[in-house]
Amino acid sequence: MSRTSITRLSRKASSDRATLNLLLDTVHIGHFAIVADDGHPVVLPTAVVRDGDRVLAHGSTGSRWLRRLAAGAPACLAVTAFDALVVARSAFESSMRYRSAVLFGQCHAITEQEAKRRALDTITDALIPGRSTEVRASTAKELAAVQVLALPIAEWSLKVSAGWPDDPPGDVLGPAWAGVLPVVQRYDQPLIAPDLRDGVPLPASVQRLLASFW
Amino acid sequence: MSRTSITRLSRKASSDRATLNLLLDTVHIGHFAIVADDGHPVVLPTAVVRDGDRVLAHGSTGSRWLRRLAAGAPACLAVTAFDALVVARSAFESSMRYRSAVLFGQCHAITEQEAKRRALDTITDALIPGRSTEVRASTAKELAAVQVLALPIAEWSLKVSAGWPDDPPGDVLGPAWAGVLPVVQRYDQPLIAPDLRDGVPLPASVQRLLASFW
Repeated sequence: MSRTSITRLSRKASSDRATLNLLLDTVHIGHFAIVADDGHPVVLPTAVVRDGDRVLAHGSTGSRWLRRLAAGAPACLAVTAFDALVVARSAFESSMRYRSAVLFGQCHAITEQEAKRRALDTITDALIPGRSTEVRASTAKELAAVQVLALPIAEWSLKVSAGWPDDPPGDVLGPAWAGVLPVVQRYDQPLIAPDLRDGVPLPASVQRLLASFW
Repeated sequence: MSRTSITRLSRKASSDRATLNLLLDTVHIGHFAIVADDGHPVVLPTAVVRDGDRVLAHGSTGSRWLRRLAAGAPACLAVTAFDALVVARSAFESSMRYRSAVLFGQCHAITEQEAKRRALDTITDALIPGRSTEVRASTAKELAAVQVLALPIAEWSLKVSAGWPDDPPGDVLGPAWAGVLPVVQRYDQPLIAPDLRDGVPLPASVQRLLASFW
């Protein structure tokens, strides 16, 4: 059985690349699994950003797990959106609406300086759209301190749960309520850095983020 | 080097069990890593709930990965909160506020019927406080269809990033803005199940959830 074949609840399986892209373009926390030298599994949570047909991650060159990923260790990356609580008429039927992508493969390190700079700008602008044009360029020293990894979007599976409570007829006739509670995420009003100079206005990128939700 | 020792940014490491508990009591999406038969890592996203000194997870008895966890495969569980965007004066210094717990160990299956029932009530009430008393009890058939797992909270590490932009003096004097954008999550107005009978009121549990955010 292939590791990307979904055996449970296969009606929830999706092979829709557009749905995968939307998930990867909305949720920027990913969880990489790798296998340590002693054979034990390890999870590495990290920011992830889609760049065309690959997923980018970055971190310090001092991180041992990033170094292991960069060395091409077999990796699995999960990106998960918790979209809603499904409140059914019984605990058993209650569940969640979610989107769950799992990608398999090997990362490679992006080391060439201009490619690294572009990848980091892509990461910055995915998290804070437009920010890369508002700040100075990274220095060569900064670039050297960052490890940038790319995982190809090649072998993946996607599960989407978007349904309603599915109660048996006896429960539907009973006294209990049923419905769906959508999760909404947004940014709250900004906390100004204690050392911000007087008169520095809120940048356009942050103003746009404050108007967004996901 | 122990797998729970944090080598990078060790000032972010925390051994505070109360901070771990708060994270596990707030974020209910977890990512388990296990190693497949072929030696490749696999991530399994699932709902997780703390019950004292253990973390509970549940799912269908038909799930092959849950079965592997239940069989005592070495596991790693990550629970991650994305708390805020840290918008620094450079892309390089920009980051996130987060809390990240990683637990190692082996799950065991809770199979005794009353223990399983109590564990499922704990899960229900963690996700929808008070809900277990509003709905009928699970049937024996339902209990038999659910696999309930417990992972001891024994070997774990915790990283907490809660700081401000840490820009070098030259950037602080420059034109760029700096601050922190907190992430707020809440439930939106409920979507009523299409088959809900007329006159069934919104339960107290859901009313409380609508007033909460995290």
